[in-house]
Amino acid sequence: MKMIDIHSHFLPRSWPDLAARFGTPGWPWMKHTRAGEAMLMLGEQEFRPVNAACWEPAVRLEAMDRDGIDVQIICATPLLFSYHRPPAQALEVARIFNDAALEICAAAPQRLKALCQVPLQDTELACRELSRAMADGHVGVQIGNHVGARELHDEGIITFLQHCAAEGAAVFVHPWDMMAQERMPKYQLPWLVAMPAETQLSILWLILSGAFERLPRSLRICFAHGGGSFPYLLGRVDNAWRNRDIVRADCPRLPSSYVDRFHVDAAVFSADALSFLVRTMGEDRVMLGSDYPFPLGEQQAGSLIRSHAGLPASVRAKLLQANARRFFRLASAPAAQGAAAAARRSA
Amino acid sequence: MKMIDIHSHFLPRSWPDLAARFGTPGWPWMKHTRAGEAMLMLGEQEFRPVNAACWEPAVRLEAMDRDGIDVQIICATPLLFSYHRPPAQALEVARIFNDAALEICAAAPQRLKALCQVPLQDTELACRELSRAMADGHVGVQIGNHVGARELHDEGIITFLQHCAAEGAAVFVHPWDMMAQERMPKYQLPWLVAMPAETQLSILWLILSGAFERLPRSLRICFAHGGGSFPYLLGRVDNAWRNRDIVRADCPRLPSSYVDRFHVDAAVFSADALSFLVRTMGEDRVMLGSDYPFPLGEQQAGSLIRSHAGLPASVRAKLLQANARRFFRLASAPAAQGAAAAARRSA
Repeated sequence: MKMIDIHSHFLPRSWPDLAARFGTPGWPWMKHTRAGEAMLMLGEQEFRPVNAACWEPAVRLEAMDRDGIDVQIICATPLLFSYHRPPAQALEVARIFNDAALEICAAAPQRLKALCQVPLQDTELACRELSRAMADGHVGVQIGNHVGARELHDEGIITFLQHCAAEGAAVFVHPWDMMAQERMPKYQLPWLVAMPAETQLSILWLILSGAFERLPRSLRICFAHGGGSFPYLLGRVDNAWRNRDIVRADCPRLPSSYVDRFHVDAAVFSADALSFLVRTMGEDRVMLGSDYPFPLGEQQAGSLIRSHAGLPASVRAKLLQANARRFFRLASAPAAQGAAAAARRSA
Repeated sequence: MKMIDIHSHFLPRSWPDLAARFGTPGWPWMKHTRAGEAMLMLGEQEFRPVNAACWEPAVRLEAMDRDGIDVQIICATPLLFSYHRPPAQALEVARIFNDAALEICAAAPQRLKALCQVPLQDTELACRELSRAMADGHVGVQIGNHVGARELHDEGIITFLQHCAAEGAAVFVHPWDMMAQERMPKYQLPWLVAMPAETQLSILWLILSGAFERLPRSLRICFAHGGGSFPYLLGRVDNAWRNRDIVRADCPRLPSSYVDRFHVDAAVFSADALSFLVRTMGEDRVMLGSDYPFPLGEQQAGSLIRSHAGLPASVRAKLLQANARRFFRLASAPAAQGAAAAARRSA
C-alpha cells in the first residue's frame, strides 16, 4: 500500500531575521541548541522544541520509508502565518516560507508536496500569493481557521476560497490562535480542548451562515484532526437546527447534509473514533494525516488505519491513499523506490 | 420499560424579587407573557422563552406519560447558580430554588426527584446547603463546570466533591458560563461549540491534574451532553499523554483509564454518536438525559436509545433506567401508574 500522509509540518533550518527586517518584536526564529535540535522561538519566548525532521528532507524521507509513506504533504506551522501583521510583511513572510517549502520538496519531488501560506488578512494579496505559489509547484494552501475576529464565513475569506477553487488549489484548514487559553494554562490543554473547538466552530460557521451555499462544489477543503469536535457534536447541531429557528436562520438544509462539502484528516488516535469518523463523514472524505513530526502526531504514520480490523481493506485503501490522491490531484504513478519498499512491507 | 430521565430542568413560576432584595441589578426573573408562557429575564435582558413545562408538574408529568418516562431528575438552569454573587446571597438564592424544586417534586414524589444547587464560590456554605438539601429530600446536586477562573480541580471544589461523596449526594456537572462567546454571536454557537468544550475541559482538569487520584471512588459524578467533546477527543489526549511529559506531569495513568470514575448522559442526538459513546464510556456509565423541556433537548425523551437497533436490549435497558437507578440510588419499586402505562406502550 503506497500511503499518502496529508498532514505534516516543516520549518526551514533558519530564515532571515524578521524582527530586524520589519523593526518590530515577537517574530518567530530558530534557536539552534545542538546538532539536529532547535527551539522555535517567538521573540524571546520559547514556543516549542523541534528537530531536524522539520527542515532536513533526508530525515523526513527516512521516516517516510520506515512508516511506508510514499507521498507526504508538507505545510508550515500556523505560528508562521503572521495574520496579525501588516499585510505587506505577512506577504513577504509567506514568500520566504513558500519558497523554503519548495526547496525541501526538491529533495524528492515525487514524494514531497507542499501547501503554501498566504497573508489571509488581505484578500487581494492572499489571492496573488496563492496564484504565484501554485504556479511554482505548490499543490494547495494551508490557512488558519480564523483571522482574528474574522471567521471562515467572512466575505474576504470566502472570496479567497472561491479563488482557490478557481485555481484548483486544495485548502487545508488548521486550527490556531486558540480560544480561552487563559482557562488552559497547563497540560497542553489548548491543543486538546481549544484546537478541536476551533475546528468545529469554523465548520459550523461555514454551514450555519450559509457560506457553503455560496462556495462552489469544486472547492476542495479539508479540516485537520478529524474535524476537531465537529463529528461527535453533529447530532446536537442537527437537533438544534430542527428545533430552534435562530439556528437555521441562514442555513437552508440540515447541517449534516453538508458533510459532502469537505474532507477531514484521520488524526484521531483511537480506532473507535476513526470508525465513528468514517461513519459520519463517509469513506470518501477521510484521509491519513499524521501531524508529523510533532509529538502530538501519530508516531508511526498510518498505523491506526492500517491496523484497524473494523474497516474493510477497501476503505482502508481509500483512507490511506486513494482519497488523498483524488483530493490533491496527485498522479497515480508511484515513486518507484517508495513503492517497492511499501510492497515489501505489506507483503 | 420504566425509563428514568436524569437530565431535565425546572424554573419556578416566579420567585422573590432578587434585585430588590439584594439591591443589585442583573438578577434572573420571570416575565409572564401569556397563559403558560414566559420570558426568563436577566435584569432587563431577554434570556430565553420558557413555558409551563418548567414550573407546572402536571405538564411535566403529562409529557413523561406520553414519552414513557417513569422517573425524572429535575434541576434548575445554570443561569440561577449566582456563583459570581456574594456567597450569602447565592446561598439565599440556592435555598429559594432548592425549596421550590421540592415543591414541584411533591406533586409526584415517586416520579420527580430533585438535584439542589449550592453557592459553590464558598466551600463551607456549599457543603452546608448540600447537607440541608439532602436532609430535605434532594438526591444530589447540580454544579456548574467552573466557578469563574476556578476549574473543577480547584481545592475548594474538590473539598465540596469529597463532601458530596460523604453525604451520598450524586453530582451532575452542567456546562455554563461558556468560553469565547465573543466568537459565537449567532446560531446558538455557545451551546453547540462552547458548552461541549467546557465539559471536555472540566473532565480533563479532573484527569490531568490528578484530582481523580484524590477523590474517593464512592463519588458519583455525571457530566451532561454525552461528556461534551470529551469522548471523541480521548484518543488525542491519550496520545498526547504518551508523547509529552508536560501532559502527564500530574496524571499517573493513561487518561482513558479514568473513564470508570464518572458517568455521562446520553444526550448526543445521533445513533452513531451514541454507539461510539457507549464503546468509549462502557455500557454501565451512560444514562438517558433529555434536557427537557428545552428546545435543544430530545423532543421525545428516550427515543434515541429505545429505537437504537445497534445496541442490544440489555444495553438499552441499562441506559434507559438501570444505570440511573444505581447512580441515583432510586428504589427499584416502580410507580404503579407510570409502570402500567410504560408496560402498555412497550407491549
